[in-house]
Amino acid sequence: MIGTVTLNLALDVTYEVDELVVGGSHRVDRSRQRAGGKGVNVARVAATLGHQVLVLGFVGGVTGELVAEELFDAGLTALLTPIAGETRRTVAIVNGSDGDATIFNEAGPTVSADEWRAFLDRMPWGRLGVLACSGSLPPGLPADAYAELAVHARHHDVLSVIDTGGDALTAAARAGAVVRANAAELRAAVGDVEVEEGASELVAQGAAAAVITDGPRGMVAASKNGVWRALPVETVRGNPTGAGDAATAVVAAAVAESAEPDWSMVLKSAVAASAAAVLTPVAGDIDLGAYRRWQPQVFVQ
Amino acid sequence: MIGTVTLNLALDVTYEVDELVVGGSHRVDRSRQRAGGKGVNVARVAATLGHQVLVLGFVGGVTGELVAEELFDAGLTALLTPIAGETRRTVAIVNGSDGDATIFNEAGPTVSADEWRAFLDRMPWGRLGVLACSGSLPPGLPADAYAELAVHARHHDVLSVIDTGGDALTAAARAGAVVRANAAELRAAVGDVEVEEGASELVAQGAAAAVITDGPRGMVAASKNGVWRALPVETVRGNPTGAGDAATAVVAAAVAESAEPDWSMVLKSAVAASAAAVLTPVAGDIDLGAYRRWQPQVFVQ
Repeated sequence: MIGTVTLNLALDVTYEVDELVVGGSHRVDRSRQRAGGKGVNVARVAATLGHQVLVLGFVGGVTGELVAEELFDAGLTALLTPIAGETRRTVAIVNGSDGDATIFNEAGPTVSADEWRAFLDRMPWGRLGVLACSGSLPPGLPADAYAELAVHARHHDVLSVIDTGGDALTAAARAGAVVRANAAELRAAVGDVEVEEGASELVAQGAAAAVITDGPRGMVAASKNGVWRALPVETVRGNPTGAGDAATAVVAAAVAESAEPDWSMVLKSAVAASAAAVLTPVAGDIDLGAYRRWQPQVFVQ
Repeated sequence: MIGTVTLNLALDVTYEVDELVVGGSHRVDRSRQRAGGKGVNVARVAATLGHQVLVLGFVGGVTGELVAEELFDAGLTALLTPIAGETRRTVAIVNGSDGDATIFNEAGPTVSADEWRAFLDRMPWGRLGVLACSGSLPPGLPADAYAELAVHARHHDVLSVIDTGGDALTAAARAGAVVRANAAELRAAVGDVEVEEGASELVAQGAAAAVITDGPRGMVAASKNGVWRALPVETVRGNPTGAGDAATAVVAAAVAESAEPDWSMVLKSAVAASAAAVLTPVAGDIDLGAYRRWQPQVFVQ
């Protein structure tokens, strides 16, 4: 089972309007809301690809109740730790004309030390094949919360996949996790280097592997056995939000099956899943037909 | 007691951002939420001016619970009819730089015929000195819902003040209500006439009185005893949302005291309250000091 950690769960509210005009008053033509946060996107994609998932995170207040309900309705098993604060919302305003989104992110509730302890105490390590952690940290949590999780995971013989940036990325690498980042986040952590070099640097620091999305230039994986670059299949137009999370889902699923997967094969699937995520308008969804069509076509160097 | 009817209650969510950029992703610096809808603004202003109020409307779902809680926290007594649908939200994005607001209004839940009947059945007529109705109608209600309320009110010797436009405005006039509208709404109902003439026309149709806000040109009242125009005190800059609701609150309070108030005196207070509402950033609030300072200064023709 793939455990996905979303420390800053959200209720993602989407409003469709005719056209967003700054200073204007808009009638909302359609609205929808569902559980969000990068870890939830990872869980949705992994579930779509046929894997068993467990959503882990904090919920509080009525917004937290709505998040829990929506996860249930979506068929995603969840183990949620209650907090005193109110779960945050994000609001996306989508133009009916061109589909462009304008996004507003609430900061999220403060998580206390006791609540963080409660979260760690209820981790069902025995049931997890891998732990995938992604997304921002809510106020109150230690900056190295992900590395702390990775260390706990190792003590229980569970490998973790951590999607983060900056200092948290190098901390996750040193904790022995499989690390996920985009090129900008990688460079914020290891300096202005080639992506292949930066990924290898994270492995040298202790990461089990590093998988770096490099935008239109594809994706790079590094492990102690080598470095690979996968090229994108074709130019895909759509909504890039959630494309990285689709890659993380594929990486987590691979690591759940084998601690040392064939990274060139993983990259093929990750690139295809990323592109298939761009095709869908909502983060967390992927176009399964496109994924299956593209997966064999990805070229890995 | 002033009963205020808000058939399309809302949870008004306000997000403060640095600057709204279409297509951008924004961190919400501050957020607040409170019960909203024009009738709630009327109730807040009336309560601020020292009157006892009763908020009447529909609530459903968790958003409805939040609306009920906030009304309670604000000290506003409420008699709310439960509905199966979910109470709507509005989201206002306020620029930190210039205070400009961009607004998104959800349509609101559909109210069934049974729920409308339940609302009418629980009207506490014996406790009401006046019934003030304002704001949009939710889907499902008859277009003449306000006129229906005014007729019920008359049967119970309660006068009603109805803030609306178009056909609903003439229907309210024919039902014998005190009608409230702005100049544009008046003209949509009676044609392209002078405000004084249009107001008198509504009285000729049966309205107990008509009070029309005329933007920077002040306010007009008509009853069977005459027509009055009040000029604005001074040019006030600020947030005009809720200024008309402040005028409705003053009109409702006057009608609660006397079925035939001195309309020139009512206009003085209504103009001062409107201007005092513009001074505050949030609809439903008024600057009480400014109101008291301006009220004696308003000039009525």
